[in-house]
Amino acid sequence: MQISSPMSLSRRSRPSTDALFEGIQQGDRTSLGRAITLIESSRPDDQAQAGELMDLVLPHTGHSLRIGVTGVPGVGKSTFIEKFGSLIIKSGHQVAVLSIDPSSRGSGGSILGDKTRMDTLARNSSAYVRPSSSGNTLGGTASKTREAMLICEAAGYDVILVETVGVGQSETSVRNMVDFFLLLLLPGGGDELQGIKRGIMEMADAIAVNKADGNLKEKAEDTRHAYENALQLFPPHEFGWKVPVSTCSALHDLGLADLWDEILIFQDKAQRSGHLENLRKTQTTSWLEDVVLAKLKADFYQDLPLQARFRHAAQKVMAGELSIRRAIDQVFNGK
Amino acid sequence: MQISSPMSLSRRSRPSTDALFEGIQQGDRTSLGRAITLIESSRPDDQAQAGELMDLVLPHTGHSLRIGVTGVPGVGKSTFIEKFGSLIIKSGHQVAVLSIDPSSRGSGGSILGDKTRMDTLARNSSAYVRPSSSGNTLGGTASKTREAMLICEAAGYDVILVETVGVGQSETSVRNMVDFFLLLLLPGGGDELQGIKRGIMEMADAIAVNKADGNLKEKAEDTRHAYENALQLFPPHEFGWKVPVSTCSALHDLGLADLWDEILIFQDKAQRSGHLENLRKTQTTSWLEDVVLAKLKADFYQDLPLQARFRHAAQKVMAGELSIRRAIDQVFNGK
Repeated sequence: MQISSPMSLSRRSRPSTDALFEGIQQGDRTSLGRAITLIESSRPDDQAQAGELMDLVLPHTGHSLRIGVTGVPGVGKSTFIEKFGSLIIKSGHQVAVLSIDPSSRGSGGSILGDKTRMDTLARNSSAYVRPSSSGNTLGGTASKTREAMLICEAAGYDVILVETVGVGQSETSVRNMVDFFLLLLLPGGGDELQGIKRGIMEMADAIAVNKADGNLKEKAEDTRHAYENALQLFPPHEFGWKVPVSTCSALHDLGLADLWDEILIFQDKAQRSGHLENLRKTQTTSWLEDVVLAKLKADFYQDLPLQARFRHAAQKVMAGELSIRRAIDQVFNGK
Repeated sequence: MQISSPMSLSRRSRPSTDALFEGIQQGDRTSLGRAITLIESSRPDDQAQAGELMDLVLPHTGHSLRIGVTGVPGVGKSTFIEKFGSLIIKSGHQVAVLSIDPSSRGSGGSILGDKTRMDTLARNSSAYVRPSSSGNTLGGTASKTREAMLICEAAGYDVILVETVGVGQSETSVRNMVDFFLLLLLPGGGDELQGIKRGIMEMADAIAVNKADGNLKEKAEDTRHAYENALQLFPPHEFGWKVPVSTCSALHDLGLADLWDEILIFQDKAQRSGHLENLRKTQTTSWLEDVVLAKLKADFYQDLPLQARFRHAAQKVMAGELSIRRAIDQVFNGK
């Protein structure tokens, strides 16, 4: 096997689009990895081939259960995904793990850069673990992760876990691409949520208090109970789904099977009520709008005289010297 | 006094920008009303004059306390704002009330269209009550309401109450233009929040359970207690502000003075910690980004061949026949 550079495929090693797609469909991990690298690449020739590949991939997508997993650093997401992924595989599924890492820049600095993370899962022949790399075209990382998800579906993975680091904007992106959004919490109060974006709690389809073992078992149960009560006071879910709050210990493999059952119940209810179909339609619409906006913004940023006027006007607006209305006038009409 | 049409000033009655601004500064309500009508107008000549007016207004803005008030229909927002506004006036302030109404289309259908609402407050010489009208240029209603807020500040109003109907996207807009965001609730559980956007609870700087009188007094107190506990489990405020949960009865003028005191404490802490300055800077940046994006979108929508391609591509995307990547290609490169 030839090792290709992580961000682009060299001309010599470039397989044809058909060969790549065939490899994906046969479950060849090298092809799968190359395909995701291809869609992540910003090189024009890679982009062209990525377009061809996605045309082939599209008819084979949509049949997976897409699960987002978030939680603050320290909550034990890696261990959770490793154990939870293994459990899902044992019940007969093929699991792909993707991640969105807003702090990653270029090819370095991924949260999954640490090679020891999820190594058991990564070695399992029914699992595919892919760290994210960031991109800034066509809606950025989120759009690439969506495409990576579709490629994994075409490769036969029927459960996709999308991991996010739980801080900032990435949760909203992940929420907008998955069927089910799981929030992991630590035993304790709301202070552990320092740094998490306000509003995330209300996005969750399920909450699991992890590390419910040993000394923390009782505290985890108290936390579970407190969140269960609290959620009753918040706006209800669109289709009447009652957000379950459970405890688990990924380390000791406790509570994970129950959580998986909850997700299957959700999937069943969401399918029967039409919620899932509506959700995916809404998600596709927003994805399209996002990439259109990203394209409009990219064109704006690439118009250098426009950009220069914008920066000048923005400075004056921030100094309170220019009204927003006048700023727009100056930027777009060159006044 | 001449009555002008609500959406545009006729040429004959159009005062000069200087005269309009002078009127605003002298606290003349007719000038104030005309100025807001002017900025809301989409007529090119009105837009040009609105630009001149905002240039004059800008140096006289920023000195008010901006308070957003939201809650589901039926929570008693009108009565609350009427009584709360009167109380603020009694403590020596000038109060302007603006509203954002996403359901309003054109000049009709405003939630404040009912003339009997807030009539006591509207007749008070220290108050100005202005229903919103919707607009679709420069970022739409939200941008107009921001400008109306600035005009009211230039007119000497030092407390601005921005009301929103509590359903859908408008809360986020209001949250992004005010210093302090108050959520009114009814005595009871979370079911009353049906229809409210998930995440709104976590945007509040204070929660008040209204209608805490008569039979509902005890239930309101239970509700207050429950929300107070629940909020401890949610992500903390940026600068350590503990969201107060109180009860009040706008109808019987109970609890409003305490709530006003809470807001003054917030203002003091927010000013001293630098939170308020940061918040307003962030808000100005987002406002500018919003109007730039709105302008880019407007140009996109006005490019009819582009629009036709977009609609065609969007249909195919929704039918699962076209990848998002290919759709963008077809829309922007005409492929």
